[in-house]
Amino acid sequence: MKKNIAVILGDGIGPEVTQQSIKVLDAIAQQYKHEFTYTYALMGADAIDKTGSPLPDETLSTCLASDAILFGAIGHPKYDNDPAAKVRPEQGLLKLRKSLQLFANIRPITTYPALQHLSPLKAKNLEGVDFVIYRELTSGIYFGKKNLSDDKTTASDDCVYTASEIERIAHLAFKHAQKRRKKLTLVDKANVLETSRLWRKVVQEIAPQYSDVTVDYMFVDNASMQIIINPKQFDVILTENMFGDIISDEASVLSGSLGLAPSASVGSGVALFEPIHGSYPQAAGKDIANPIGSILSAAMMLDHFGLNEEARLVTDAVQWMLQHGFVTKDIDPINSYATTAIGDLVKDFI
Amino acid sequence: MKKNIAVILGDGIGPEVTQQSIKVLDAIAQQYKHEFTYTYALMGADAIDKTGSPLPDETLSTCLASDAILFGAIGHPKYDNDPAAKVRPEQGLLKLRKSLQLFANIRPITTYPALQHLSPLKAKNLEGVDFVIYRELTSGIYFGKKNLSDDKTTASDDCVYTASEIERIAHLAFKHAQKRRKKLTLVDKANVLETSRLWRKVVQEIAPQYSDVTVDYMFVDNASMQIIINPKQFDVILTENMFGDIISDEASVLSGSLGLAPSASVGSGVALFEPIHGSYPQAAGKDIANPIGSILSAAMMLDHFGLNEEARLVTDAVQWMLQHGFVTKDIDPINSYATTAIGDLVKDFI
Ligand SMILES: CC(C)[C@H](C(=O)O)[C@@H](O)C(=O)O
Ligand SMILES: CC(C)[C@H](C(=O)O)[C@@H](O)C(=O)O
Repeated sequence: MKKNIAVILGDGIGPEVTQQSIKVLDAIAQQYKHEFTYTYALMGADAIDKTGSPLPDETLSTCLASDAILFGAIGHPKYDNDPAAKVRPEQGLLKLRKSLQLFANIRPITTYPALQHLSPLKAKNLEGVDFVIYRELTSGIYFGKKNLSDDKTTASDDCVYTASEIERIAHLAFKHAQKRRKKLTLVDKANVLETSRLWRKVVQEIAPQYSDVTVDYMFVDNASMQIIINPKQFDVILTENMFGDIISDEASVLSGSLGLAPSASVGSGVALFEPIHGSYPQAAGKDIANPIGSILSAAMMLDHFGLNEEARLVTDAVQWMLQHGFVTKDIDPINSYATTAIGDLVKDFI
Repeated sequence: MKKNIAVILGDGIGPEVTQQSIKVLDAIAQQYKHEFTYTYALMGADAIDKTGSPLPDETLSTCLASDAILFGAIGHPKYDNDPAAKVRPEQGLLKLRKSLQLFANIRPITTYPALQHLSPLKAKNLEGVDFVIYRELTSGIYFGKKNLSDDKTTASDDCVYTASEIERIAHLAFKHAQKRRKKLTLVDKANVLETSRLWRKVVQEIAPQYSDVTVDYMFVDNASMQIIINPKQFDVILTENMFGDIISDEASVLSGSLGLAPSASVGSGVALFEPIHGSYPQAAGKDIANPIGSILSAAMMLDHFGLNEEARLVTDAVQWMLQHGFVTKDIDPINSYATTAIGDLVKDFI
């Protein structure tokens, strides 16, 4: 199989973790006689520094011409504490999501028995945890009209959803639920928000088409508790953009390290794969960042290509590494391996 | 001291838990020669059933004429799954908050060594946890314009903040931080939202007036992780309405039971005190609900009246009860006491 992969290394630890995934993809290509070619493109603070734009046109066309995008991370603290900054690294990512209509961000939440000691949660609360979050990614308050009054004393962000924006991701989530434990939980705030009531209405209307799936409705404030108290109740969580941002990061700590969690963003065309951790500038260039989140994202990409056996080999490799203590500093501060060493070990396993 | 307290029993377990607080307040009144009088008022599903309105005018005038409001809980599932419902119990509470300008919801987060075994978090993650959340309560997406298009396919909720809305709660939070460990964390999403950038700007501008307070800025998705991974880093958290709703419920599970957590909503005039748990209709009328959240809310009310010794006596009583196993079913399913029994015991302790 020939695949043309757009690679956005991005900021902070983005480049070093993504390089490990490329090692792994190359090892897979060699073993299974695939041909993966990589086209590098700029985004984020790195792109602003080099071109003035957080998402240069060239990046967009590289992505559009690719079969999939492998992305590291973006963001730099120099922009965060300046409320008046004109360009921000995040604008690149948001514009990319919107331009490619990557409307569904899929985040599997798994726990690893070998890492149980690292989780902030007690073992009994973690038992049997295995769910996946579908976060809407191209609408809601992230993309509504924004305004700051001329006198700079009033700011606004509009949250807008249309029924069709909700339907398309709801169908994906229902279909995934059918292949899993057949339970879907819509997380919303329908007791307060009009948009949430539309979410509830659309999901209620679609539900009969998936009669084997049990549907549950949960307010987001309650969901933020249930994810900690009783996470094993969840199978597929479906939610809007802002709520999904918050609860999927929250859920990612269950595994014991944010550094392990992968994600896929899919839409009607090309899909994007990225670890859920951020650019973590403090660790950049030190060869200590955890590349597993990125490597598992690459595995999701292989699955997306229909290369399920190849994907399985990568996830097996990761399981083996975690079980045998081949981990980075975030997981074991004393007996730790470098970012590049972990990449090499996964490659060798393959 | 004479105080006129408006009492809103509300829905579900609201009435039964609030009745225990009244027992406790009566015991305090007797011992310290205060005179507390109670005026009962309707709100929520109960009010809809009896008057057609979730917040009858009479309730509003009773509250305005009072020195403080003691409130139970509202909400009934019959409204939750009907996206087309015309009146909702929650509208009563939202209108009350807005009418009384209860702009700051204050939620202390404490853990109890005696209940450590109940917390979903490991002991080491709970050590030294003691923080307070200031949630803005009368603006943001809860109160912005809401719309559903005539063809019912597009819904919107606007989030609006003015600098003065942010300033008034920020001052309260900074002042509280000065009396505590002198650290304030603003939780926002300033990398995406215009309103969050205004929050950051206002807080940055006010900060020099409280030069003994260290200010930290944290994105809400990160905060939702940090509350679980490392909650002891927080002293005072300041945040907007929707984020506060989510992270304060999340934080309330640290103690081991949502049933223990109190809150105060304050503004320019009369203040309101309520447990943070909801109406929990499944438990209503069974004499099993935990009244401690309500009793500790009554203690916050005493503090608010300047009756600090009296408040202390109530919190000491609660500590003693928890240490000696006088707890409801949510805390000890085997050796448990009834709601009314707990109320009586706290009263007797006083
Ligand atoms: C960087 C930021 C804009 C982004 C988001 O909020 O969507 C990130 O937190 C994420 O979840 O991918
Ligand atoms: C009942 C609901 C409207 C309310 C809110 O979201 O503010 C509740 O969850 C709370 O936190 O007091």
